[in-house]
Amino acid sequence: MDAFWIVVGSGVLALAYAFFAYGKVKRFKVENERVNELSEIIHGGAMAFLSREYRWLFPFALLVGALLWFTIGMGTSISFLVGALFSAVAGYIGMTVATRSNGKTSFAATLGMNEALGIAFRGGSVMGMSVVGLGVLGIMICYALFKDPNIVTGFGFGASSIALFARVGGGIYTKAADVGADLVGKVEAGIPEDDPRNPAVIADNVGDNVGDIAGMGADLFESYVNSIIAAMAIGLTIFGDRGVFYPLLLSALGIASAIIGTMFVRVKEGGNAQVALRVGTFVTGGVMIFGSYFITKSVFGDLTLFWSVLSGVAVGVLIGYVTEIYTSGDYDAVKQIAKSSETGAATVILSGIAVGMKSTVIPVILICVATLVGFKFGGLFGIACAAVGMLSITGMTLSVDAYGPIADNAGGIAEMSHLPHEVREITDKLDAVGNTTAAMGKGLAIGSAALTALALFAAYAHAVNLDAIDLKDPYVMVGLFVGGMLPFLFSALTIQAVGRAAQSMIDEVRRQFREIPGIMEGTGRPEYERCVDISTGSALKEMVFPGLLAVITPILVGYILGPAALGGLLGGAIVTGVMMAIFMSNSGGAWDNAKKFIEEGNFGGKGTSNHAAAVVGDTVGDPFKDTAGPSLNILIKLMTVVALVLAPLFI
Amino acid sequence: MDAFWIVVGSGVLALAYAFFAYGKVKRFKVENERVNELSEIIHGGAMAFLSREYRWLFPFALLVGALLWFTIGMGTSISFLVGALFSAVAGYIGMTVATRSNGKTSFAATLGMNEALGIAFRGGSVMGMSVVGLGVLGIMICYALFKDPNIVTGFGFGASSIALFARVGGGIYTKAADVGADLVGKVEAGIPEDDPRNPAVIADNVGDNVGDIAGMGADLFESYVNSIIAAMAIGLTIFGDRGVFYPLLLSALGIASAIIGTMFVRVKEGGNAQVALRVGTFVTGGVMIFGSYFITKSVFGDLTLFWSVLSGVAVGVLIGYVTEIYTSGDYDAVKQIAKSSETGAATVILSGIAVGMKSTVIPVILICVATLVGFKFGGLFGIACAAVGMLSITGMTLSVDAYGPIADNAGGIAEMSHLPHEVREITDKLDAVGNTTAAMGKGLAIGSAALTALALFAAYAHAVNLDAIDLKDPYVMVGLFVGGMLPFLFSALTIQAVGRAAQSMIDEVRRQFREIPGIMEGTGRPEYERCVDISTGSALKEMVFPGLLAVITPILVGYILGPAALGGLLGGAIVTGVMMAIFMSNSGGAWDNAKKFIEEGNFGGKGTSNHAAAVVGDTVGDPFKDTAGPSLNILIKLMTVVALVLAPLFI
Repeated sequence: MDAFWIVVGSGVLALAYAFFAYGKVKRFKVENERVNELSEIIHGGAMAFLSREYRWLFPFALLVGALLWFTIGMGTSISFLVGALFSAVAGYIGMTVATRSNGKTSFAATLGMNEALGIAFRGGSVMGMSVVGLGVLGIMICYALFKDPNIVTGFGFGASSIALFARVGGGIYTKAADVGADLVGKVEAGIPEDDPRNPAVIADNVGDNVGDIAGMGADLFESYVNSIIAAMAIGLTIFGDRGVFYPLLLSALGIASAIIGTMFVRVKEGGNAQVALRVGTFVTGGVMIFGSYFITKSVFGDLTLFWSVLSGVAVGVLIGYVTEIYTSGDYDAVKQIAKSSETGAATVILSGIAVGMKSTVIPVILICVATLVGFKFGGLFGIACAAVGMLSITGMTLSVDAYGPIADNAGGIAEMSHLPHEVREITDKLDAVGNTTAAMGKGLAIGSAALTALALFAAYAHAVNLDAIDLKDPYVMVGLFVGGMLPFLFSALTIQAVGRAAQSMIDEVRRQFREIPGIMEGTGRPEYERCVDISTGSALKEMVFPGLLAVITPILVGYILGPAALGGLLGGAIVTGVMMAIFMSNSGGAWDNAKKFIEEGNFGGKGTSNHAAAVVGDTVGDPFKDTAGPSLNILIKLMTVVALVLAPLFI
Repeated sequence: MDAFWIVVGSGVLALAYAFFAYGKVKRFKVENERVNELSEIIHGGAMAFLSREYRWLFPFALLVGALLWFTIGMGTSISFLVGALFSAVAGYIGMTVATRSNGKTSFAATLGMNEALGIAFRGGSVMGMSVVGLGVLGIMICYALFKDPNIVTGFGFGASSIALFARVGGGIYTKAADVGADLVGKVEAGIPEDDPRNPAVIADNVGDNVGDIAGMGADLFESYVNSIIAAMAIGLTIFGDRGVFYPLLLSALGIASAIIGTMFVRVKEGGNAQVALRVGTFVTGGVMIFGSYFITKSVFGDLTLFWSVLSGVAVGVLIGYVTEIYTSGDYDAVKQIAKSSETGAATVILSGIAVGMKSTVIPVILICVATLVGFKFGGLFGIACAAVGMLSITGMTLSVDAYGPIADNAGGIAEMSHLPHEVREITDKLDAVGNTTAAMGKGLAIGSAALTALALFAAYAHAVNLDAIDLKDPYVMVGLFVGGMLPFLFSALTIQAVGRAAQSMIDEVRRQFREIPGIMEGTGRPEYERCVDISTGSALKEMVFPGLLAVITPILVGYILGPAALGGLLGGAIVTGVMMAIFMSNSGGAWDNAKKFIEEGNFGGKGTSNHAAAVVGDTVGDPFKDTAGPSLNILIKLMTVVALVLAPLFI
């Protein structure tokens, strides 16, 4: 019972941290009319998106909850609803704070670097800490109610459902707004980025929050809780209560480590924000590793499982680093893409695709290492513990990650409210750091999705109690093929959805430029809200079909071809899903930075045909890295958790 | 013993047909100096490539043969060498005849459509019939020598090794030449396609033969013999001798059907070549289905396995048809890509990628149907028989397929030798038909690769005698991940190889334009041979690493992680390999035809910015559809056959 209260206490602690961090941000006063106004519009747009999204989600959640009640049981149904609710609340908190911190960050930049970093990081940490706090507490509530990890899987399903909508919908939203703003504003009308005359500029800024805050938060929330739940479910059958509480204690430790880590995120004037964030992350990781040594020893009396956890933590950090190598302008891969712009857009595309495909190799090997080390020291439970280890420091990594879009927004607001040049310089520096941390966050999101899906897969295999999911069995092989095909179909659907949504946005921006008098002179106010509305509507409409696909396919295959074929389906979807997610995220990231590398004056710089070629790559990469790629993280976790929750139906 | 001679007789019949068809082509005299000269240069270039390729292959084959002798045994080693030799001979014959038929086709076009079709199709049929004849005879020789299908697997390994070099090397060759010719000739110097002043024009025409004749021939030769061998190996353990000869008899029947089918390929003046080829294919398929009914009945006394075979034949035809829907300008997918050119190159790329990804769905479902139907009516043997059924009509499909590049070359020669406009019109018509048949051939190549790999996989699983290749076993899952990653790495490597090879070609063409006096006025003769040489050298150099990867990875995984993990590796590679092959082939085909659709005058036609955007898509698509995509067919078959042959080492 001690363990129970320790875990609950850690969850409360995380939420308390978030509460106080929010208080500090809130108390910081912005003395600039224009900054306040813009921040308010972005905040309003983000909230409008969330409230419309949640209005769709509410009946959906109730319907699924009802179906679960009748098919699986009351406990799973309630857990599902709690999971959906907690994920939604975490998203709401994160978005609220992020869209309140952006304007404050730009104003804080007038005071100095440390002040700006302080606000932006604190804003991000509210998201990070809310996710882990609500995650741990939600699991504990469901476990206290039903005393059975197999019922708590419903909580994970709820979290996954919200994540699907947040990631797919958010991904479509952000890219539709981005493309619309860029294509008509920058290219056709020739006005700069973040120019307040552009009607889509607010939607674009809202999109950064919708995609990178709410989307990323829901993604990691899903990984976080599902890795814990999978470990609990497997642990129960092997170690009894100890197996249930061990992953929970690791998570509690992770929360404590993250709080200690955040204290190290400081920068002196003229200092390096990148270093500050890295120190914070390393301190968190170090405390986590150190502490898990003792926890493992005290729970099991020996250290075997410690190595499983350690492999997860290590691989989580390394995957982020590999992502950086393939997508940052400091390394060769991106420079090669930039160079290929000399022979035109086609070679930019080809070299970016090749880089993305090649970048699958090391992450896959790392995931395999974590899997094998996890297994060697702890069987299937060890794999799940590796996933828990990787995700235990989510409180910190997500704080760092959420900081990025806040800094990005802050720069936009500084630009739009004509703050002095030095301010923009500070926000630009913070934003550049944000791009690197975003790459690392994306790597972690994919790696953790893979490991979480594997842990859920192990739990599923356990639950349906099959002798084997045997590739020699043609039904399993057929499942593998269908599963392997789904990420391709899913990516095609989301890419096409972005295309259609962007088209509506383009039409609207063109219309406003045409019809609103004085808009180009800055005397007529653009109808920002219309653009926000269009992005919201398109995103919500377009995510229905891919969403249904993700939920219904595993159910159909399980029913028609049986639980072994469903196992094959999950295996196939996880494998191609992970490959495609890495490929598309990293191609997209590499194109983005190749363009920026040229814009820094290399290979001719802005305005040359080389730059134009690189812009084509960046445009192709946008839906790759911000819509299709991240959505696959959700797809593989959602499908596996659906299979796990519904396992009793397929036996 | 009767069955033995029937099969041998069918092989001899196929070769006799090829011999007489070649005689007819040879006797046709070309009375045009220029046509003869150009045809001779292309022929010389193609032979130069083959002889240099074979000079590399010879020591490689001997080395592998020696290793096999010591590790597996004499029989497998000899079978391997015979397989490599027969595949090389089939490629040599096909290339010789194809490069002898192209000039004759252009000259025959001065006499009329039927004459031109007759020569082109007869030239293609030499390739088609040589492949099936040599395939069947080679298998029979090895079987007669060693009386054990498990030893005959060495023959399949030999065929796969040659296929790897032919497909990967050929794919790099053809695209390096194509890109070099287009980029410097068409874009920079502004001279038309197939202009004799372009130094790379001969290399480009040679490339069509190297890629589409030798590459496609070796690809289908590999599928053809491996599907038969896999069926023999599985059949032996279930039905004894009957199980060994049943797939062979089906192949013999396929040869007879193809010969009957070829008689129906005729066209009246003003008639439709497309219809003629389709009638030939349908007749072949009909005879095959009808005959296999009786063969099944007489071998087994019941019809069960007939349904397995039928599913293979049907799916083979349907996959070709689906490919056409996604890649032909007559359908919506391609028109949508063409329309997306209105918003620039980036949207062309995105819509083409989405089409390619979407196009995986139906072929995957068809492959699953063939697998399940095959299994339902015949267990694992039924799956192998479905593959044999699909490939039984290779004699006809490959004839139709090889016809394409001959017609394409004929058009080029007609242009370069300034034949009358009406001649070019006829060759253009034949070429257009060739594009459609090529799409269908590519669909069949992928579908048959998938089914053959599955049959080989089943034979492997049989051979290592594992209880299960269990996805719950983390070693299998790790194998699945590594296997799933390989097609991405392989594609990245081949795409980058094309980039480098094309760059050397571009440099050389630029140099010739600069240094050879009078080259642009048509008075200085370009050094065609240098360009052929560069393509050849680059192709051979670039294929070494991907080739080694394909052979060594399964061996390493088998040794280090064991036979079950190797099974996982094969499963993962087959699944992502098939998806990526379909995706890249169809994206590439769709971009190609979207560009052609615009060139026909839609969306502004040639010279507009829309056309320029479509050209970017086409350029990206070239290495997709002609290098990376087709190479994956080989990768998955080669890796599985390596595992099957070396299975005794891993037990």
